Amino acid sequence: MTAPTKYVYAFSEGSRDMADLLGGKGAGLAEMTRLGLPVPPGFTVTTEACKVYLATGEEPDELGVEVARALADLERAMGRSLGAPEDPLLVSVRSGARFSMPGMMETILDIGLNDDSVTGLAKASGQERFAWDSYRRLVQMFGRTVMGVDGDLFEQAISDHMAQRHVATDHELDTTELVKLTDDFKAIIREATGEEFPQDPADQLARAIRAVFDSWNGERAHVYRRREHIPEDLGTAVNIQAMVFGNLGGDSGTGVAFTRDPATGESGVYGDYLPDAQGEDVVSGVRDALPLTELEHLDPRAYAALGGHLRTLENHYRDLCDVEFTVERGKLWILQTRVGKRTAEAAFRIAHDLGEEGTISADEALMRVDGAELTRLMFPRFDTAGAAEPIAHGVPASPGAAVGVAVFDSAEAVRRAAAGERTVLVRRETTPDDLPGMIAAEAVLTSRGGKTSHAAVVARGMGKVCVCGAESLAVDPAAHRFTAPDGTVVTEGDTLSVDGTAGTVHLGELPLTASDVGRALQSGTSTGALTDAVLGALRHADSLRRLEVRANADTPEDAARARALGAQGIGLCRTEHMFLGERRALVEAMILADDDTAREQALAALLPLQREDFTGILEAMDGLPVTIRLLDPPLHEFLPDRTELALRIAAAEDPDPRDRALLKAVERMDEQNPMLGLRGVRLGLAVPGLTAMQVRAVAEAVTARLRAGGDPRAEIMIPLVGTVEELRLARTEVERVLAEVAEETGTPFDCPIGTMIELPRAALTADRIAEAADFFSFGTNDLTQTTWGLSRDDAEASFFPLYLDQGVFEVSPFETIDQDGVGRLVEIAAAAGRAANPDLETGVCGEHGGDPASIHFFHRVGLDYVSCSPFRIPAARLEAGRAALIGRAEGSDSR
Amino acid sequence: MTAPTKYVYAFSEGSRDMADLLGGKGAGLAEMTRLGLPVPPGFTVTTEACKVYLATGEEPDELGVEVARALADLERAMGRSLGAPEDPLLVSVRSGARFSMPGMMETILDIGLNDDSVTGLAKASGQERFAWDSYRRLVQMFGRTVMGVDGDLFEQAISDHMAQRHVATDHELDTTELVKLTDDFKAIIREATGEEFPQDPADQLARAIRAVFDSWNGERAHVYRRREHIPEDLGTAVNIQAMVFGNLGGDSGTGVAFTRDPATGESGVYGDYLPDAQGEDVVSGVRDALPLTELEHLDPRAYAALGGHLRTLENHYRDLCDVEFTVERGKLWILQTRVGKRTAEAAFRIAHDLGEEGTISADEALMRVDGAELTRLMFPRFDTAGAAEPIAHGVPASPGAAVGVAVFDSAEAVRRAAAGERTVLVRRETTPDDLPGMIAAEAVLTSRGGKTSHAAVVARGMGKVCVCGAESLAVDPAAHRFTAPDGTVVTEGDTLSVDGTAGTVHLGELPLTASDVGRALQSGTSTGALTDAVLGALRHADSLRRLEVRANADTPEDAARARALGAQGIGLCRTEHMFLGERRALVEAMILADDDTAREQALAALLPLQREDFTGILEAMDGLPVTIRLLDPPLHEFLPDRTELALRIAAAEDPDPRDRALLKAVERMDEQNPMLGLRGVRLGLAVPGLTAMQVRAVAEAVTARLRAGGDPRAEIMIPLVGTVEELRLARTEVERVLAEVAEETGTPFDCPIGTMIELPRAALTADRIAEAADFFSFGTNDLTQTTWGLSRDDAEASFFPLYLDQGVFEVSPFETIDQDGVGRLVEIAAAAGRAANPDLETGVCGEHGGDPASIHFFHRVGLDYVSCSPFRIPAARLEAGRAALIGRAEGSDSR
Repeated sequence: MTAPTKYVYAFSEGSRDMADLLGGKGAGLAEMTRLGLPVPPGFTVTTEACKVYLATGEEPDELGVEVARALADLERAMGRSLGAPEDPLLVSVRSGARFSMPGMMETILDIGLNDDSVTGLAKASGQERFAWDSYRRLVQMFGRTVMGVDGDLFEQAISDHMAQRHVATDHELDTTELVKLTDDFKAIIREATGEEFPQDPADQLARAIRAVFDSWNGERAHVYRRREHIPEDLGTAVNIQAMVFGNLGGDSGTGVAFTRDPATGESGVYGDYLPDAQGEDVVSGVRDALPLTELEHLDPRAYAALGGHLRTLENHYRDLCDVEFTVERGKLWILQTRVGKRTAEAAFRIAHDLGEEGTISADEALMRVDGAELTRLMFPRFDTAGAAEPIAHGVPASPGAAVGVAVFDSAEAVRRAAAGERTVLVRRETTPDDLPGMIAAEAVLTSRGGKTSHAAVVARGMGKVCVCGAESLAVDPAAHRFTAPDGTVVTEGDTLSVDGTAGTVHLGELPLTASDVGRALQSGTSTGALTDAVLGALRHADSLRRLEVRANADTPEDAARARALGAQGIGLCRTEHMFLGERRALVEAMILADDDTAREQALAALLPLQREDFTGILEAMDGLPVTIRLLDPPLHEFLPDRTELALRIAAAEDPDPRDRALLKAVERMDEQNPMLGLRGVRLGLAVPGLTAMQVRAVAEAVTARLRAGGDPRAEIMIPLVGTVEELRLARTEVERVLAEVAEETGTPFDCPIGTMIELPRAALTADRIAEAADFFSFGTNDLTQTTWGLSRDDAEASFFPLYLDQGVFEVSPFETIDQDGVGRLVEIAAAAGRAANPDLETGVCGEHGGDPASIHFFHRVGLDYVSCSPFRIPAARLEAGRAALIGRAEGSDSR
Repeated sequence: MTAPTKYVYAFSEGSRDMADLLGGKGAGLAEMTRLGLPVPPGFTVTTEACKVYLATGEEPDELGVEVARALADLERAMGRSLGAPEDPLLVSVRSGARFSMPGMMETILDIGLNDDSVTGLAKASGQERFAWDSYRRLVQMFGRTVMGVDGDLFEQAISDHMAQRHVATDHELDTTELVKLTDDFKAIIREATGEEFPQDPADQLARAIRAVFDSWNGERAHVYRRREHIPEDLGTAVNIQAMVFGNLGGDSGTGVAFTRDPATGESGVYGDYLPDAQGEDVVSGVRDALPLTELEHLDPRAYAALGGHLRTLENHYRDLCDVEFTVERGKLWILQTRVGKRTAEAAFRIAHDLGEEGTISADEALMRVDGAELTRLMFPRFDTAGAAEPIAHGVPASPGAAVGVAVFDSAEAVRRAAAGERTVLVRRETTPDDLPGMIAAEAVLTSRGGKTSHAAVVARGMGKVCVCGAESLAVDPAAHRFTAPDGTVVTEGDTLSVDGTAGTVHLGELPLTASDVGRALQSGTSTGALTDAVLGALRHADSLRRLEVRANADTPEDAARARALGAQGIGLCRTEHMFLGERRALVEAMILADDDTAREQALAALLPLQREDFTGILEAMDGLPVTIRLLDPPLHEFLPDRTELALRIAAAEDPDPRDRALLKAVERMDEQNPMLGLRGVRLGLAVPGLTAMQVRAVAEAVTARLRAGGDPRAEIMIPLVGTVEELRLARTEVERVLAEVAEETGTPFDCPIGTMIELPRAALTADRIAEAADFFSFGTNDLTQTTWGLSRDDAEASFFPLYLDQGVFEVSPFETIDQDGVGRLVEIAAAAGRAANPDLETGVCGEHGGDPASIHFFHRVGLDYVSCSPFRIPAARLEAGRAALIGRAEGSDSR
């Protein structure tokens, strides 16, 4: 037989390791009790009891008995009885889940007060007004929280009383008035519920506990958990604790204290103190709190004791702690502690300082920071103090802050940039045609599309600020203006401030704060305590990580920037952009060619342009691998839109014959599902000369760099392979051209040939594909699209919001890799590929390569590298180091 | 140490079981030698020797020695020496692969003749002309086949000699002329190659063997193997056999004989005989052969001996055998035997008769026929004897033969059908809008799309004749005509004969032969020997098979037809068609609805129409399961084309406001990749009320049928599920509505709820999905699309022909399931699903459900049923029975 489940623990029975069972707050109270800190005694009802209640709608049978027993112990310890007419014991009832959900759930104070005990409290405390104020607060809180009465009714009653007495705050209401107010509150409850406010203290307690349980399923709590990815089935614990009072006069008070500054991480005691007040007064902000240091003057003994306890806690938890405390007539009580929340800046400073002080190891310090925090520190920020509200909110797609004048087409952005003007390119959505404008602008703002829309992906790649999917904006590109939901009309030339980290847009120019961290990461030189901490953490991560970090970069400039940020090569060099802009005419000529000669001419004209691009990139990444992907998108992406073209021809008096030819080509090449059509390796096999031209450009660039004394390390990557036969055919052609160029130039060179694994079938037959590949690069964007049968662009515009809302996804599978589906394919393919070809190199070049959670997964399944947008490289380095640490601790690394 | 590989086997050393090593022909010769039949002696060079040659470009070292040794044995046995000046031994050198590749590879006769031995042969045979004719044939054949000389040069020389002698055939050339001709042939070789025709018989033999090896890689052979799905790496064996001569006068001759009639399967000896001729004369058809029975008069002894040998062979092989034989001066020689090819009709007859005779078991008889043969017998056929050439060839997409007048739009087909006229609907490609026309027409002809295009899939579903992808046709729907490649212009009203089995289109009306088999399958009543055989085979298959066979059917008529053909329910009832035609206006109203009320009204109007459809289908399938799939395609499929609509609005003086609203909706709902967009379960979750309306229609139909005393067994299937969360949400809604209707009507009923597995992620997470599903139905069409990242329609129109040509696929993965990729997912999902939910029913409803090779796979992985187009049901039943037999023999069944 197993022991019966125990649902109630006295604080003295628990410890910090029991947070799953006791919740975070309960575990902290127990731990402080163990450490001998002055904690008002009490007990905790476990999360298990809550789970039973949530599952069955009833408290477990044993709960009532256990609570009664724990209460009896508490009464014995305190020498008082709950709600006794003379000197009553009062208790607080507070929720406390495993993960902090501040303000999301319920608290009820002063349980135990009733029409009799209020007099006892008045006598015992010697403060009649205090007693009645506590009682009316209980009735109000209980009525709202436990009995479901509309809170506004109570607020209205208070206002009425204040008006009658001609006073401005409820603090000015005297005892008589509070007695009447309490009566009014009870009447409100009676009217709303048909029930009396319960006078039985045990009944009050039981109903308060149940109310806390119920609050787990409140709307606010659901929303919060979804946003924070907290599982729905954890349940909350409930803490019942003897009340202490900070509002008994000038020798009492309440406050919060931190062992270090949670904003900057600087060491020293920080916090606030409010004399003659309860905790809720601090939170409500009705009165301004004093700096904690004032307590030293007001009550030196309590201040010294608090300092000692804070040191005890930081040494014990070996981290920043915060506490809530109350001074009751000169006696200090600690009501709560936890490892404190902090800003990104403070996280790095504190971890670094604790490491330097020898409190924690360098490994532990690294585990205290993360890539998302590092990314936040890298970019300039707006100082929004005193600024007006944003005129729009959108998806924070590419971080940083930028100011410029609104422009509504690519050409205008280019024109103004040439004139030295800073611009924000505003579009409904961007297409490859907007590329020159995106390069010229400081920021991109769109009204459609999510984090993986064209605008978002390209902007991140270029390190441009981007807010996308600001759906409340009505963008009218033809009229060169947009209208914000508040009616503001922004026309070309108006100044905008775009915050890509927050996803907000402000009218006018906000002041910018530059980022020391951004500068230090680029230069490698520290300029202060924060950059010391950041560079130190990265150095340690670099020393630990097994994963290499490469960049997705398509231009020499991107390559150079990525390299400065620590990229160990280019994992994905897309050639799409090299087919755009002024070269588009050549691409059109290639597509429209009606014989081999015409096509060959068009290809030949593209060759030197591509060669120059590759030469520059190889130079910027000299000595490091540069993985060049052969042209991937369907060719019709380089042609105009069918409907627009048809309308243009229909509207013209005398249509351009070239337009007619183009329309024919567009119709011929039209595909119902281009994502699944003639693209990737299929394109190379179907269009004669296309692969050869690209490979020749690479080979000639390599040769040119070799002649210049460089160390070019080009690799050629075949996209969208589904079967080894495709790869074999493509590889044969690539090898043929490489050999041809080596022969012509008399310069032999190495050039590994690999493939993207971005189709489920490629992953499932990876053993065979590995026989013909020198490397695998997991294209997890497309692999996610095909594994889920989801077109990213279509899905994000239509049902993704619904799916996130209904909890079908916790997070978009395009943001963090879906381990159960897509991840399983990655795992299968990496293992099978390595088994078949032990020299196979494996990496990932999808957007997931820069996502912290995904990086940990890629480490676990044993990939060799991740490749990501340049700005995500520092975070990726950090997370790769952290992943190695976790892997070591868990012994879970597959390699 | 392993024994050294043996590359040469005398006929007396081999047997029929050694076909992998000796090829089909070599194994047959060996077996006949073992049986004591009069086979000219010889030996076989193994396929292993060929593989070494193909891999290294050199014969294995030991081969020369082994051939020399075998030749010496042969010379000893024959008492003559190869190419000796006196009475020379001559040999034939013939290819012989594992699988027959008739005419694809090389044969060289009369090896051993040279300038000396030709005289010896003349003396020994007593026929000088015969000797020189043999010699000139060797030089010609050797020159062309071994030495690579253009064969036309030899033909030209023969023509020149005939012209000089004023004769019409080479038979009329006399010895003197043949001597000169031989000299001319040798000169042609000298000039073309710079080499002399080799005089050394051993050299001739070695080079002939090598030429046979080389012929494996000839263009013809590649093409043949690709078409017949014969692996590329098998290699061919080479048979060297003493020559016997059928052209030594009236007491000699050559022929082919069958143990039964290979056209009808009737028993009795069949064949042809050509006196005074070599085998190649029979093949070339220069002279008309006599019926074999004539031999009885010409040479009763030889005839009787042949009859005896045929009986020996049929008893030994227990199947139809054919032989090639030669009579040399009254002596019968058997040169080859094999299990003979036969028509579909003969296959059924012979298998049935051998079974009845007790020669083979019923199981074995079943293994001798297949589903493709059965399907060929089911449909009427054209009698094309004397007909003109077809005016077009296309993809044989839906079998059968039909005659009708050409119409170019759906409305015209409907109009003419109403007037009692039979029509052929001709379109570039069909869309759901063409459905009424397809129903009205006898046949569908398109110029675009493959076997899985809309036209093909729908036509097969309806049992309509369909030829699609006839790309040589220039279809001009606006002008109501098309132009064939030969310039024929067909206008509306012209009569066409469309053969969906052959994929051909004839102008005018061809005579039709009805199919007894088709009638017998529908009625279950036999009308003769053939239908006896077919129904018997099906009965036996039904008694053996584990797989159930259901139909894909969307109307009561299809359901009834399928049931007659043996369907055990409906595995896929698509509801798409129920949203088309006159109901389209309601669907548009639903899509255009700008508030809940308008949408609910549109849905409410659709409800009774859907209910009637379901009631009819459930009635037709009373007592059997009917799996109804909720609406799957993206809603914009029900709206007009964007470009056409935009052009219409642009062209109108005063555009219809409804058109404007439609265009807005089309633009809003436009998706870049609709296949991966808002469809399937996503649609049901996103469009309020859509699922509820459909489920209510099903539930009300079930209730109506129950009230009518029927036994309705509806099942509801949720399409395109990627994660169990989607299924749970949809299932909750379905269960809610089912319960609601049961409550309203007071009639409780069962309705299993399951899901399609058609996304890789669904397959990979099948264990979780199975927790919320009563059944899995594998949608292998979409699963193939997503696993391969291929849009069927786009791919078939663009790179599929190239891929089949380049050998990337052996067969389209949409035709036969890709076992390595898609099949692996099916296997993973079926196993995981059953493990998680032992009651889970599993089936397949993609096009593969009717494909023989795929059916065998689905049996092996343990599915419960396949579902296919009605006309494929008999073949599926047959193949399911055969799969069970094979599984039993191999012990390979997973269940």
